[in-house]
Amino acid sequence: MSNTTTTTTKTTDKDSNDNKPVIGLSGRNIVYDKDGKPCRTCNTLLDFQFAMGKKPVIPHEPKEVKKEKLSGYTKDYPPDVSELGKSSWTLLHSIAATYPENPTDQQQKDLKQFINLFSGFYPCWYCGEDFKIYIKKNEIETKNQDLFGKWLCNAHNEVNKKLNKPVFNCELWKKRWKDGWDEEE
Amino acid sequence: MSNTTTTTTKTTDKDSNDNKPVIGLSGRNIVYDKDGKPCRTCNTLLDFQFAMGKKPVIPHEPKEVKKEKLSGYTKDYPPDVSELGKSSWTLLHSIAATYPENPTDQQQKDLKQFINLFSGFYPCWYCGEDFKIYIKKNEIETKNQDLFGKWLCNAHNEVNKKLNKPVFNCELWKKRWKDGWDEEE
Repeated sequence: MSNTTTTTTKTTDKDSNDNKPVIGLSGRNIVYDKDGKPCRTCNTLLDFQFAMGKKPVIPHEPKEVKKEKLSGYTKDYPPDVSELGKSSWTLLHSIAATYPENPTDQQQKDLKQFINLFSGFYPCWYCGEDFKIYIKKNEIETKNQDLFGKWLCNAHNEVNKKLNKPVFNCELWKKRWKDGWDEEE
Repeated sequence: MSNTTTTTTKTTDKDSNDNKPVIGLSGRNIVYDKDGKPCRTCNTLLDFQFAMGKKPVIPHEPKEVKKEKLSGYTKDYPPDVSELGKSSWTLLHSIAATYPENPTDQQQKDLKQFINLFSGFYPCWYCGEDFKIYIKKNEIETKNQDLFGKWLCNAHNEVNKKLNKPVFNCELWKKRWKDGWDEEE
C-alpha cells in the first residue's frame, strides 16, 4: 500500500495503453480517476486541461480566463489539486489553533473521527489515501492543542517532502497558524 | 438563538464596558472570544490588529508584511475570517463534487457526521454556531451528489446574503465546483 505514496503509481495501466499523457505540462504526473478519466481534483488546472485535450490556460493570463463575470458572480474554475491542498491545510491548521488546550474525552474522540472522515471524503482520492496511510502509521494526537498542532504540522511536512517543498519547523506552528509572528522576527 | 446570526450581537457586554472597539477599520463589527479577547479567526486581519492595538497592515502593501522569508518558508500570518471562509467553502464544495451519485447508507451517515463535526470544530466560533442553526433548520441532504451540492450551495448563499455578497444560482453549482464552464459561456 505504501507504493501509492509515490507519484509514479498514480497513472493506471489503462492510461498508458490508451495513449493518454503520463506527464503534464507542469512536469507532474497526470493522475487519472479509477474510471480512467483525468482527475480534476488531483491535477493542476493546467495539467487537467492538457489531459482533457483542451487548450491549456496560459499561466501569465489567468485573470482573463478565471475571472469573467457571469450575472453578478465570478466564473471561477473548480479548484485544482494545489488550491484544494492549500485550502484544506488552512482549515485543518486553524482547527488545531482553536482546539482546546485541555480537551474532554468526547472532544478528542470527535476530533479523531473528524480527521478520519476528512481523509475518506478528501476530493483528491490519492491524496486522501496517502493521508489514511499516514494516520495508520502515526496515530492522531488529540490529547491537547499543542500535540495536535504538531501532529498536523508533521503530516503537512510529509506532503511538503513529496512535493519537494521546504519543510516547516513544527516548533513554530503556533506562530504560523495561531498567534502570528512578533514584529521584530 | 437566531439572534446570534446578526453581527451586532458578536460583541459582549464586557467589551463595551472595557472601552474596546466595537467597529473595525473594515466597517465590520469586531468579534471577541468568550474570554473578551479579539477573536483572530472571526475578524479580518486588519480589524484583528486594530482591536489588539497593533499597527494595522496597510492593504496596498500586504506583500512586504505577509511574505517575509524565514529560513526557507514564508512568514505568513494566520488566516483571517475571510481566508478561512474561502478555504472552507472550497473544501466543502469539492467534497460535494466528488461525493457519490448513489451513496450507500453508510456514506450518507458519514457525510452527515462529517458536516456536524465540521460545524463544531469550525475555527470561527460564531460562524460555526450560525452553521449549526442552519443545519437544524435545513436537514443536510445526503441522498445523492446533486442534492448535497445544492444543499451546500444554499447554505453558502445564506452566508453570502449576511455578508452582502451576490448569491449564486444553485442550478449551476456543478459548473462552478465540478465540471467547469463551457468555453462559449
